[in-house]
Amino acid sequence: MQVIRQYIDNNKQRLLDELFDLLRFPSVSADPKYKADVLKTADYTATKLREAGADNVEVCQTAGYPIVYGEKIIDSSKPTVLVYGHYDVQPPDPLELWETPPFEPTVRDGKIYARGACDDKGQFYMHVKAFELMMQTNTLPCNIKFMIEGEEEVGSNNLGIFVKENKERLKADVVLISDTSMLSMETPSLETGLRGLSYLEVEVTGPNRDLHSGVYGGAVANPATILAKIIASLHDENNHITIPGFYDDVMELTDAEKEALNSAPYNEEEYKKDLGIAEVWGEKGYSTFERTGTRPTLEVNGIWSGYIGEGAKTVLPSKANAKISMRLVPNQGSDKITQLFTEHFTRIAPSYVKVKVTPHHGGEPVVTPTDSVAYQAAQKAITEAFGIEPIPTRGGGSIPIVALFEAELGIKTVLMGFGLDSDALHSPNEKYDIYNYYKGIETIPLFYKHFAHLSE
Amino acid sequence: MQVIRQYIDNNKQRLLDELFDLLRFPSVSADPKYKADVLKTADYTATKLREAGADNVEVCQTAGYPIVYGEKIIDSSKPTVLVYGHYDVQPPDPLELWETPPFEPTVRDGKIYARGACDDKGQFYMHVKAFELMMQTNTLPCNIKFMIEGEEEVGSNNLGIFVKENKERLKADVVLISDTSMLSMETPSLETGLRGLSYLEVEVTGPNRDLHSGVYGGAVANPATILAKIIASLHDENNHITIPGFYDDVMELTDAEKEALNSAPYNEEEYKKDLGIAEVWGEKGYSTFERTGTRPTLEVNGIWSGYIGEGAKTVLPSKANAKISMRLVPNQGSDKITQLFTEHFTRIAPSYVKVKVTPHHGGEPVVTPTDSVAYQAAQKAITEAFGIEPIPTRGGGSIPIVALFEAELGIKTVLMGFGLDSDALHSPNEKYDIYNYYKGIETIPLFYKHFAHLSE
Repeated sequence: MQVIRQYIDNNKQRLLDELFDLLRFPSVSADPKYKADVLKTADYTATKLREAGADNVEVCQTAGYPIVYGEKIIDSSKPTVLVYGHYDVQPPDPLELWETPPFEPTVRDGKIYARGACDDKGQFYMHVKAFELMMQTNTLPCNIKFMIEGEEEVGSNNLGIFVKENKERLKADVVLISDTSMLSMETPSLETGLRGLSYLEVEVTGPNRDLHSGVYGGAVANPATILAKIIASLHDENNHITIPGFYDDVMELTDAEKEALNSAPYNEEEYKKDLGIAEVWGEKGYSTFERTGTRPTLEVNGIWSGYIGEGAKTVLPSKANAKISMRLVPNQGSDKITQLFTEHFTRIAPSYVKVKVTPHHGGEPVVTPTDSVAYQAAQKAITEAFGIEPIPTRGGGSIPIVALFEAELGIKTVLMGFGLDSDALHSPNEKYDIYNYYKGIETIPLFYKHFAHLSE
Repeated sequence: MQVIRQYIDNNKQRLLDELFDLLRFPSVSADPKYKADVLKTADYTATKLREAGADNVEVCQTAGYPIVYGEKIIDSSKPTVLVYGHYDVQPPDPLELWETPPFEPTVRDGKIYARGACDDKGQFYMHVKAFELMMQTNTLPCNIKFMIEGEEEVGSNNLGIFVKENKERLKADVVLISDTSMLSMETPSLETGLRGLSYLEVEVTGPNRDLHSGVYGGAVANPATILAKIIASLHDENNHITIPGFYDDVMELTDAEKEALNSAPYNEEEYKKDLGIAEVWGEKGYSTFERTGTRPTLEVNGIWSGYIGEGAKTVLPSKANAKISMRLVPNQGSDKITQLFTEHFTRIAPSYVKVKVTPHHGGEPVVTPTDSVAYQAAQKAITEAFGIEPIPTRGGGSIPIVALFEAELGIKTVLMGFGLDSDALHSPNEKYDIYNYYKGIETIPLFYKHFAHLSE
């Protein structure tokens, strides 16, 4: 480990500068106006892989944004680690809430503020630098393959096709991903599961045009009100989701699993204070960690109807729209849940309106067994780097392609992330702690060391 | 009437051209970026009044947009009619739904398409031209005063002050307003009442920032969902508003009034077909005309929260907002209803969120007695011009200052409008039929004739 720390110390500034360069690309995959920037980010990533020592680096074309591939095969008898990450980022808006520009990385209090600082550029770039470190110190004990895509934030639609068409090239023993968080740097943790995702847009149409709310108000159904009523009906008084069949496939945790999950430090007063809320909220009968890690949810991600500009406009709107997503847990299936939602929403909509439900990308929930070689290697690496064993946690977010990797490549994924819940992913003023960035670069080579040992 | 029709015929094109010039000004009072245009519209109106023959024409400054005044006093012993109108217009958006630009008046099928064509430029300008006609044909039998303001669409906040400060100048026997509609040109009608208005904005705040819906979804209340639940609760299963005390001051119609109201032609199939809806909607136990004319309502005019751009963003939003307005009937009071709403909304909001309620402009409901001299004069004028007696109707919309006129000047208002429900007020592709424009110019001088006679 001394060798590792020395290398990081000697290259501290450059490691940061290169990340800042990466962060400056506004690689927003959701918005077509950033297309050129997304493509430049792919090229930058490929260049950095080459400079780190990777072979066969390729910016692989897809029907959408390219996937950057690179590898180092040291010995075909050694285990192979497949590193996944994504170089695209969430949209930055609302812009006016950022203290400094989202694509001008700025350091405050030891934190890097930028869109993508944590999700996922800061995190995947640690792997590129850890690889460089192992190459430079001649300590790479495994084969390594990189697969860095550009569409994770919009559903990774072309990744599945790429994986299916490149099974030989991607052959590996484990997938390694840093796109999740730890409880804290004092209480490091390892993700043992991720929730799945079902995402839909709904449109409720009343009259065929916006109407004067005086002339027609009271005689014509208002789609905004109807949509509000439908949304309101989706949770009962125990905040349990009311879609028939929704919970059929949900697996309850064992008592041991619940105990391990709830053993993680949790200070509800600080949690509430950090978020500025008076009360937490959630499904009755479950703790906060259970609610975010082991229970499925339904959230309104966006809703809009009528006049939303400055001042008053007395309109009875023609349409009302919402973006709704559900987080899923094992063994719920994303397609099945999407179907259940669509049928339910369509059925309960009253005859005064027409509704349209459009599914977006989905993803399956996953669980990584804690007795696997890969998990053990990560556990040992973190214990060595942090001086304390990591707590097993269940993540609330989704990385839809983890289930895909298992299905197509037959391998498990280790989710060894170094982010923090305070990183404000998907929000304004996203950040990544500099300490965590270097800590990740330090820990990752230890994973390779232990993975190689345990695989012998 | 022959003299009237002759004059209109001889000046047909000019009457239309001048209105088109007026329509070209984008006098949008709700949006500050149109300020210069609004002021130019006031000047144009003043110029036209002068050209028509008015004396003491003045663009009167207020704390907001000016009020245009002009008068013709022929004989202090004659009755005086005070004509009210507004030269400001609704915002034109959504722009992409207009077939031709909103401020480039275009004729299709005998209709003038432009923002403000009916509400209110086409209608108030009929009065300016009717005045010119009476001056040119030497048939003006009453004194006439014009008061054309520029803030009706944003609440007429400075009109009350102007009226209070100019009681002498504005002394009159009746207020005459054309800002409402008739059932049709075949079944002319006269408005006997208008609904009042209470307009508010609500803001529901959950966490102090947008959150990642995976990390926090299920553990933190979503303000969009909470707002939906609150809105959903405002109407019960009979579409009756649930705010305590809301209906306390509502006056039911007499059987005779209901009969007169429901005698107006109503074809529900055509009504539904025109709006593209499968079913009408409304308070159980009331007909469509009763629902829009005699019953109070609550409408969501706008709602927005979270990510509403292109594509998917898995955010748990910090805030959710809505614009909500209520139409009121006699004898509900606007301030009282605003208070009841605010108290109720604040009280039923759960402790997971904070709510803020901000009132906008309001207005009182009004009724014009059908046995008054003014109403009789309008009735006779329409009967003469159309060859059929007008049906008395109750308007759904609000003109808040009508109650103000009664309170401050002690006089009633006659609502003699020539619009049609199909005019798409407040919507894209607002229009005014050319036939109605000329018909109004023809009918208005007859009002003056009968008003002068009946006042003797």
